[in-house]
Amino acid sequence: MKKQITIGVVRETAAGERRVALDPETVARLTAADHDVLIEFGAGEEARFPDSAYQQASASLATRSEIIDQCDVLAVVHAPGADTIALLRAGQFLIGLLDPLNDPVLVAALTQTGVTAAAFELLPRTLSRAQSMDALSSQASAAGYKAAVVAADSFGRYLPMMITASGTARPANLIVIGTGVAGLQAIATSRRLGAVVTGYDVRPASRGEVESLGARFLTSSIAEGAAAGGYARALSPEEHELQQTELARELVTFDIIITTAKVPGRTPPLLVSAETLTALKPGSVCVDLAASDLGGNVSGSVDRKTVVTAGGVSIIGAGDLAAELPTSASAMYARNIHALLESFTTDNQLQVDLTNDIHTAVLICHNGEVVNAQLHARRLEESLNA
Amino acid sequence: MKKQITIGVVRETAAGERRVALDPETVARLTAADHDVLIEFGAGEEARFPDSAYQQASASLATRSEIIDQCDVLAVVHAPGADTIALLRAGQFLIGLLDPLNDPVLVAALTQTGVTAAAFELLPRTLSRAQSMDALSSQASAAGYKAAVVAADSFGRYLPMMITASGTARPANLIVIGTGVAGLQAIATSRRLGAVVTGYDVRPASRGEVESLGARFLTSSIAEGAAAGGYARALSPEEHELQQTELARELVTFDIIITTAKVPGRTPPLLVSAETLTALKPGSVCVDLAASDLGGNVSGSVDRKTVVTAGGVSIIGAGDLAAELPTSASAMYARNIHALLESFTTDNQLQVDLTNDIHTAVLICHNGEVVNAQLHARRLEESLNA
Repeated sequence: MKKQITIGVVRETAAGERRVALDPETVARLTAADHDVLIEFGAGEEARFPDSAYQQASASLATRSEIIDQCDVLAVVHAPGADTIALLRAGQFLIGLLDPLNDPVLVAALTQTGVTAAAFELLPRTLSRAQSMDALSSQASAAGYKAAVVAADSFGRYLPMMITASGTARPANLIVIGTGVAGLQAIATSRRLGAVVTGYDVRPASRGEVESLGARFLTSSIAEGAAAGGYARALSPEEHELQQTELARELVTFDIIITTAKVPGRTPPLLVSAETLTALKPGSVCVDLAASDLGGNVSGSVDRKTVVTAGGVSIIGAGDLAAELPTSASAMYARNIHALLESFTTDNQLQVDLTNDIHTAVLICHNGEVVNAQLHARRLEESLNA
Repeated sequence: MKKQITIGVVRETAAGERRVALDPETVARLTAADHDVLIEFGAGEEARFPDSAYQQASASLATRSEIIDQCDVLAVVHAPGADTIALLRAGQFLIGLLDPLNDPVLVAALTQTGVTAAAFELLPRTLSRAQSMDALSSQASAAGYKAAVVAADSFGRYLPMMITASGTARPANLIVIGTGVAGLQAIATSRRLGAVVTGYDVRPASRGEVESLGARFLTSSIAEGAAAGGYARALSPEEHELQQTELARELVTFDIIITTAKVPGRTPPLLVSAETLTALKPGSVCVDLAASDLGGNVSGSVDRKTVVTAGGVSIIGAGDLAAELPTSASAMYARNIHALLESFTTDNQLQVDLTNDIHTAVLICHNGEVVNAQLHARRLEESLNA
């Protein structure tokens, strides 16, 4: 019987990356639908999916070069290295968190190979049809949960109030800045752990979500004044500075600060300044989910490192915390891959439809050309600024 | 004005020990009562109590030798090293978790100096007057809380059930073996985090406490059969083996196992065998609160290390996890020290009363003699076995 589509998964090679693009459960769904799945030896090891589990799900184990050679679709978390990309050929699909807005060299390399490359970062997230494909959301949710757990583990005190024969401990006072998917999950998890939680966002419309999780909502009086229809308008530089000063005044009252203000393809805004860090109590903990090579939300944060200031404040650089919840994050990610693959599948064969708004949004390149409007606009902007 | 009692605190030197015997808050209470407190430079650093905080609480900073020279009471977490003990002199008090049942060499050295040494391990824990002094309880509570946090951080999956657009994650299935203070706190905290929790204890009387925390209670049918008045009688070797086989059969269904069966002065019982470890799912996590140089509750556990088995099971050796919640654990411990000190204080001076049941229980030695009935009994038993 003719197999439908051959999907390949290689071991992720980025430093600290413990996820894998497909978990055995999703593999079983694909093989049950008569697709072939090839898994690189050991690809799931760090996510605690042994090779044997993939075999039980009817996948075949193979080497990286066998997979590249035979697959119709290569499913990845991050873009593979240049040597792997050079081996791809026209007509193959590549799906993953390819970060095309930050990586023009990758975009050029992919386009040259003639592959059809789809990046989750380009998904139209407001489309309800796209929600099951929303890897940014699923991974942000994992990162937010893990941020609260990491904060609890680094903090030298109880998060909940404790009333014991040896005295009473007051609960930790925790603030989450930015109440998107990651922020809301961080709020929910630290609330579960018994902390007193505040959610801060410049979008006044977030109030309802934050309060429904039992947290206090804090927003900028400046941004709130500037809001229209639930959304904040962009602030002028002066307003922005006022907002920052106002926030800094609040921050010094907290024991734990979790920041989540990541802006795709841009340098993250600095929310916790060096001055604020000095004013925090010894033992305070900052978890910076925006930490990256471009900087983070917390002054001095270094991605994947913990820095302790002279004043005893721990700054945890955690730009990719979903990788630290690898089993669940991979399982959710695999479902996003599966859903996106389904949208590309017609009559059990891969098909690109440039009238499909998900396809036009998510594709970087197809048949040797960049087909993405967002990427074209970004390049134009860059060439004008150059 | 004459100062009442001079209390000294030195920096803890045991590997991985981050606690300190007194926190600034308790120091402030002592200095307000006209006692002198001397703190070694940097003693609170790892617990995030800076020297300046002690100064604000009216303590004086001093060197270790100045402190030993001037103090009436030396408050410690663990027994100091032999060189420090050699500097102590008759009439001084030493208070801490001195572990006298395991350390006859220490007992002999202390007795020789003529100090009055009190060990929290010897406290009559069932006396309600002694509850505020119960450092074993306060530290076990910290360890139990931290065990759940550490388990959550090591586990590659969510603890709570998650229902998202990217699919549903089932909650983690967690068991706590031994439902004393540490076990109950581990149950409470992992319940907070959303795990499905079972508490196992051979004492059928624990059922109420476990169930009141929203966990399922599991006990041994053999032990339950052998119980009288809510307490289990000691099992015969055959019954013990049956109980272990029965427990092992249950354990393989869990994702996370937290073991808490520490027996003061004895080798901890092996509860999770090598065979059980092999049967656990990849990604499972064991946290062994009984890990020690004498072994632990989990086969292959190494204190203060994480070992990952070939089958992908993480074994976290965590014999002294209170040290990993140093700020709260120290604050509770300081209150225990304060309460015990008060019991030794009459008219603002230290006084030993050998008709006081707390004094007779807690003292190791006084005026150059071992004054403890438990220690005498232990020595007798050992000499008979020798």
